[in-house]
Amino acid sequence: MHTGNIAKLAEKAEICKVLIFPGMKIALVQLNYRIGDFDGNIVKITEFIERARREGAELAVFSELSVTGYYPQDLLERQEFIAAAQAATEKIAGHCHGIAALVGAPVLNEGERGKKLYNAALYLADGKVKDLFCKSLLPTYDVFDEYRHFEPNKSFHLLEAGGEKIAVTICEDLWDEQPVQYEFGKDKLYQCSPMEELAKLQPGLIVNLSASPFSVDQEAWRKEILTRKARQYGLPLVYVNQTGAQAELIFDGGSLFIGPDGKILREMAYFREDFLIIDTACSQEATFQPGAGKIGKMEQALLLGIRDYFAKTGFQRATLGLSGGIDSAVVAVLAVRALGPENVRVLLMPSRYSSSHSVDDAVTLAQNLGIRYDNIPIQASVDSIYRDMAPLFGDLPHDITEENVQARIRGVLLMALSNKFGCLLLNTSNKSECAVGYGTLYGDMNGSLAVLGDLYKTEVYALARWINRHEEIIPHHSIIKPPSAELRPGQKDSDSLPEYPILDDILYQYIELNFSPEEIAASGFDLPLVNKVIRMVNLNEYKRFQAAPILRVSAKAFGFGRRIPLVARF
Amino acid sequence: MHTGNIAKLAEKAEICKVLIFPGMKIALVQLNYRIGDFDGNIVKITEFIERARREGAELAVFSELSVTGYYPQDLLERQEFIAAAQAATEKIAGHCHGIAALVGAPVLNEGERGKKLYNAALYLADGKVKDLFCKSLLPTYDVFDEYRHFEPNKSFHLLEAGGEKIAVTICEDLWDEQPVQYEFGKDKLYQCSPMEELAKLQPGLIVNLSASPFSVDQEAWRKEILTRKARQYGLPLVYVNQTGAQAELIFDGGSLFIGPDGKILREMAYFREDFLIIDTACSQEATFQPGAGKIGKMEQALLLGIRDYFAKTGFQRATLGLSGGIDSAVVAVLAVRALGPENVRVLLMPSRYSSSHSVDDAVTLAQNLGIRYDNIPIQASVDSIYRDMAPLFGDLPHDITEENVQARIRGVLLMALSNKFGCLLLNTSNKSECAVGYGTLYGDMNGSLAVLGDLYKTEVYALARWINRHEEIIPHHSIIKPPSAELRPGQKDSDSLPEYPILDDILYQYIELNFSPEEIAASGFDLPLVNKVIRMVNLNEYKRFQAAPILRVSAKAFGFGRRIPLVARF
Repeated sequence: MHTGNIAKLAEKAEICKVLIFPGMKIALVQLNYRIGDFDGNIVKITEFIERARREGAELAVFSELSVTGYYPQDLLERQEFIAAAQAATEKIAGHCHGIAALVGAPVLNEGERGKKLYNAALYLADGKVKDLFCKSLLPTYDVFDEYRHFEPNKSFHLLEAGGEKIAVTICEDLWDEQPVQYEFGKDKLYQCSPMEELAKLQPGLIVNLSASPFSVDQEAWRKEILTRKARQYGLPLVYVNQTGAQAELIFDGGSLFIGPDGKILREMAYFREDFLIIDTACSQEATFQPGAGKIGKMEQALLLGIRDYFAKTGFQRATLGLSGGIDSAVVAVLAVRALGPENVRVLLMPSRYSSSHSVDDAVTLAQNLGIRYDNIPIQASVDSIYRDMAPLFGDLPHDITEENVQARIRGVLLMALSNKFGCLLLNTSNKSECAVGYGTLYGDMNGSLAVLGDLYKTEVYALARWINRHEEIIPHHSIIKPPSAELRPGQKDSDSLPEYPILDDILYQYIELNFSPEEIAASGFDLPLVNKVIRMVNLNEYKRFQAAPILRVSAKAFGFGRRIPLVARF
Repeated sequence: MHTGNIAKLAEKAEICKVLIFPGMKIALVQLNYRIGDFDGNIVKITEFIERARREGAELAVFSELSVTGYYPQDLLERQEFIAAAQAATEKIAGHCHGIAALVGAPVLNEGERGKKLYNAALYLADGKVKDLFCKSLLPTYDVFDEYRHFEPNKSFHLLEAGGEKIAVTICEDLWDEQPVQYEFGKDKLYQCSPMEELAKLQPGLIVNLSASPFSVDQEAWRKEILTRKARQYGLPLVYVNQTGAQAELIFDGGSLFIGPDGKILREMAYFREDFLIIDTACSQEATFQPGAGKIGKMEQALLLGIRDYFAKTGFQRATLGLSGGIDSAVVAVLAVRALGPENVRVLLMPSRYSSSHSVDDAVTLAQNLGIRYDNIPIQASVDSIYRDMAPLFGDLPHDITEENVQARIRGVLLMALSNKFGCLLLNTSNKSECAVGYGTLYGDMNGSLAVLGDLYKTEVYALARWINRHEEIIPHHSIIKPPSAELRPGQKDSDSLPEYPILDDILYQYIELNFSPEEIAASGFDLPLVNKVIRMVNLNEYKRFQAAPILRVSAKAFGFGRRIPLVARF
């Protein structure tokens, strides 16, 4: 053995020295579950338990509520659901011979008081459920509803496995100090710090079973929180997240193994399933995933969001209306990338106000993507509706009514295609439009899934440029022309809205940062303009109430995570 | 003074003896607030503080979160909202001279840990906020989200006012033991009993500020809980609820004064504002509100729900499609009763499948109600859509696609009327249809407000008969004919659904009682039928996701209070 090798071994020993945990081979299993699909989830989990054993792991760690999929919401109130989860857990335990596993599942609170359930991590070994660790910190904000269903745990113990002592925590348990997303937020949302309690029991390792949904900043926050916890307690940390989309919520995976010095040693794949065995005693050199920028991550998230929505609802094919504008162009590209060109077909539905450009751009895009397109001019049907209503409308001037009729006839045609051929309709509204109500309810707001509903218009532009970075897939003209709904002659979005960079900045400060009108104005806008925008946001709550589910990519998306009363005056 | 009077006085003294509280004149102020309308709420509250003082009360008690209106949801996350609530509370306090008041408002949690806010009752006296009582039990189930925004209180003290000691509680604080609505529920949802803690401090009276929404069984549950608490602690109880509808949630008032023996002494009005002064030392004889049956209460609730939705969104006029069927007939009657015949106009929109009966019944109803109706046959526009799609559909057989086109063209026409004349569209779907997805998204599911969305079809029949109890307002034929969507020749609801009494019973057991398929079958149904119905309920979650807000009249309505994942398989 020559000196080079000796030097390497010495270096390796140096790395091992900082790990106070004497050593265990642990499999990190990052999977995509379907909520309530117990049979499917059992198969997935047991297959990976087999693989982990085959590859020499002593313990396989799965993500939070892995047995049920995260998050089952009010299915947790059904006795047969809980019974099925329990049966599934026992079935999985039956496979744990020669290896142990930590899986997530709801368990009954046998106490006289409190919510019916705990959100638990179950330790499976020797064919049985051997130990149980319940979640203490229950996120109940934004998209999270956990206190709706679960009782917080208040007593702590360690997992003793293979002669080692492990602090088993579940997701939010490590988030007792949070990054504050806006000034009025609080960084310590809970009365208790589970790791403070567990640290008193002197563990050698932290394990965290997680279900942490994607938003563009989440990866950075997560790494900050987790590395800080590892460093603070001088303990290695195994973090297993789920991946896959559950309708609006997209889980990005990115599971981690972190050293006791807070350095990330292993990082698992993003937006797909992954499997990794680590040896806590002797780490290899650190390996990371290739970095992705904000827009690249958004694209991956949206692709997973589309793919899983179709897979999990049992549909293969999608449709949408292609207007020649940028929003529908981006959705078409994403749909083709997620589902394949053979599974996407589109309608072009020009009216008398559609420019010839628009039709040309839409055709070019469809040809670039190799998807079927059909051109159905809407004017005849729109005129038929006008004739129907003429006796009632008399000489009243054309107004937004007639604009909406055009959007709604397009909606009728798209839904007819959808119904006849079993294609899910993709909605193409963006977050800026959703915010200010620049869209027609039961018209262009139709759809099973709003692909871009959490991207501001300026982000849609950035995504279009990203898509075109190697070649012109989306016609250049769709990107550079002034945005227009083309519902009346010469109409431009800027007739009724501020330019998008200004609008989006105001919206971001109002919606994401929760800034007051005065604070927003202080960043360089006229207060009347700010108030006008905010008024539009608030007046259109009723439209968003009936909007399609929106793929969430920001820390504050419209929908389930933002609950505003319909009849408020504020 | 003759002996009769003496006997009466003796009897009165007997009543007074059971009241251990030495005596205070308290005004119970039951109002209808608008969420976030601080100026409006200040005017209302201060007017009634004046009146209470004028009429000799020492203390005026308002309902939970009266300053903001219940429930502000995520407006509570906005700093300027909390600041406005604080300023409003101080302004109200400025009116409290010669009288004290208990009002509800959010207050900041100044502690380092926990949620940002408390849900508080503020004691206002001598022109200032003098004391503060925070809510301990935060309902976070069904339509309630309070732990999303509030930190639970854990320290207890009494209000000392006029030499008396009062246990101030907020709504759920008295509900530590709940009626269990289904077997799998828990009757003790919380670790602590606020009244157990407060009783140790020896109060002479319980006051409860409440915001308790209506459902048909709620009044009975509420009276049971409150009278039990009064009796258990041997204390009189002052209970003040809010009234008025906040979109889906309808608050029915019915505030109470209960004696220390658990007997209800005074009961305030239902479904409207009310004001009452009680003397805790010397109660008059018990007075109650006139009783109302289940259907009568539902009607009152729905009328308030419609009226307040319009008033609070600033609309006067309503429209809807009249099919000749029972659902739209009942909605038309309710709209006329809530808004006046001059504010309701309807469309009749027959297709080639509409029976002549249907049109006649609709015309008769419109004439009975004295509302404007217009007849717009839809066939021309429907055929226009069929022609548009013909190149794509070719020889494919007619199916649900063509049925949906008819419903959607009606939706387009109704929305055109709505847009042109500023009439809100009322949705006429019932709970049975919502449950099994027997309705067309972007068609007959359109509307600003689903008036009957929480009434099973059999309840709609009962309500129709109730409406007709004195005279035939709804044409008898609309009630007795077999229900049909009339979207194909000879179609009947019973072609695709079980008879409604059977369907509704299964749905009630599944949705309200959370029974498993096997439990439902045990009550006398075939398991395959039960499973078929449940499958329809679960497959149509995506339709309900985009449904109009539903006026809630049951303990489990579709919408905000029932959260089911879109992509579950269970």
